[in-house]
Amino acid sequence: MTVNNNSGILIVGSIAFDSVETPVGSVEKALGGSATFASIAASYFASPRVVAVVGEDFGDEHIARLTSRGIDTKGIERIAGGKTFHWKGKYHENMQDRDTLETCLNVFEGFDPVLPDGYKESDYVFLGNIDPKLQAKVLDEVGHARFVGMDTMNFWITKTPGDLRSVLRKVDVLFINDEESFQLSGERQVLGAAEEILKLGPKYVVIKRGEYGALLFGHDLRLFVPAVLLPSIVDPTGAGDAFAGGFMGFMAGATKITRSTLAQSMVAGTVMASFAVEAFSIDGLLELDTLMINNRRDELRSMVDHD
Amino acid sequence: MTVNNNSGILIVGSIAFDSVETPVGSVEKALGGSATFASIAASYFASPRVVAVVGEDFGDEHIARLTSRGIDTKGIERIAGGKTFHWKGKYHENMQDRDTLETCLNVFEGFDPVLPDGYKESDYVFLGNIDPKLQAKVLDEVGHARFVGMDTMNFWITKTPGDLRSVLRKVDVLFINDEESFQLSGERQVLGAAEEILKLGPKYVVIKRGEYGALLFGHDLRLFVPAVLLPSIVDPTGAGDAFAGGFMGFMAGATKITRSTLAQSMVAGTVMASFAVEAFSIDGLLELDTLMINNRRDELRSMVDHD
Repeated sequence: MTVNNNSGILIVGSIAFDSVETPVGSVEKALGGSATFASIAASYFASPRVVAVVGEDFGDEHIARLTSRGIDTKGIERIAGGKTFHWKGKYHENMQDRDTLETCLNVFEGFDPVLPDGYKESDYVFLGNIDPKLQAKVLDEVGHARFVGMDTMNFWITKTPGDLRSVLRKVDVLFINDEESFQLSGERQVLGAAEEILKLGPKYVVIKRGEYGALLFGHDLRLFVPAVLLPSIVDPTGAGDAFAGGFMGFMAGATKITRSTLAQSMVAGTVMASFAVEAFSIDGLLELDTLMINNRRDELRSMVDHD
Repeated sequence: MTVNNNSGILIVGSIAFDSVETPVGSVEKALGGSATFASIAASYFASPRVVAVVGEDFGDEHIARLTSRGIDTKGIERIAGGKTFHWKGKYHENMQDRDTLETCLNVFEGFDPVLPDGYKESDYVFLGNIDPKLQAKVLDEVGHARFVGMDTMNFWITKTPGDLRSVLRKVDVLFINDEESFQLSGERQVLGAAEEILKLGPKYVVIKRGEYGALLFGHDLRLFVPAVLLPSIVDPTGAGDAFAGGFMGFMAGATKITRSTLAQSMVAGTVMASFAVEAFSIDGLLELDTLMINNRRDELRSMVDHD
């Protein structure tokens, strides 16, 4: 898996403190958020620049963890007197379903992404799960990106379908989980859901199915990557963002958009998600090296190699 | 996919009349049962011989449907004055969960498999989901099979764990769904479940995950095949048996046990299961040809071909 740190990728999303309880443990106000997970995952394949907002309670030590991965943090705005977005949740025994116990948007409620000089020329852009109006605003500022990925969630599918559809027309790939794909499309099988979503504009849709793997659909293109088989899972939080970050980072590093690079991006996303869920917060993602990443890539390849 | 009808495979299991309601329709007293689905699926790759029991209400037209696929039905015992096993069930909206509304075992309650002359020399054996005591009895009669597959279910895992473990020591492959694999192993992830099950004796374990595909584990071997993506599903009944039948039939037809034939057997099983769920009863499995089967095989291969 080629690691190419010369390719810039703009990542816009949330930075949060997560308080998480899972069947194997818990963590209080640990670093999280879509931009955090995505940028760290992407940093193994490209050079991420992050646009996000935090409060005065967001210490320099957190910024340092991002910069230690070569992430450009100029676009992280710190609001004086404000508090950082805080999410509190508890996972069920199956490690899939979860209950949200508390959501304090804090400074994230007024998030108005501003792109620093240089960010606007980004060729690769990942729009994390934020208000589609803000996603659209970022895209307008960027102008001519080569490849744009976006995430969304049930809230925007239900509450602002018009805004969501308007962004969908402008992106290359939508990352979505299977339940959300059914909600967005009105279909009950992933095949039909993918076909309907492609009609909304994106060139590709990646349907994430957690421990069951992920599918990429394009016009005349279907790719599947199984999830890495793990002995145990510690915390699923951020898996989807790590997937998107790994995928988009690999695309940025590869610089060519072909069937093969899309497939390798799916593998990169799958591998980064597998590391993310093995520890709380970003701890599973910070200390990786090429060998660790390539070993998991090879494991995935071998599982689907039928010769 | 090589179709080799010279290879005999013994299939022991149930023959039933199924009354099924799914979100898209319903059927009354239609031909079903593990031996039925497995033998028809296997018939595309090998020559199945079936051992099962039916009642006087089991008309010759049903036997004719099996013989039309080249299946040897000498081992199907018809009990005078008896009634055929009847199962009635209703599937939920998600086409995965189901409620059993009625189970009339009838003649199946006294099933005592007797192998006709010639059956005992079978090199390939599939033991459908029946009392593990009966599975063991069949294996004793067969003597020296080259490759034995077995199915089971939560009922035997809970009620007769000793009998089940004693058969597990004698088989080559166990087919089991993920929930049952957790129940049998006490683990909560498929990786750990597979490792524990392999310790019980079988050389391989196939963990079936419905629409999410299937995994094969052996010592130092992991294979994954995604499910065929279907626009719609009519009736999931029999999918697991069609999978096992396709898998075992392909193994019998291939005659060699290698990584590659195991992988191709996983694909054959996946393809046969996909046809089974597209219609009620056995209707999706009866009228196939090599081209239809190979097209789905190629579709699966292409989805996991990352080059």
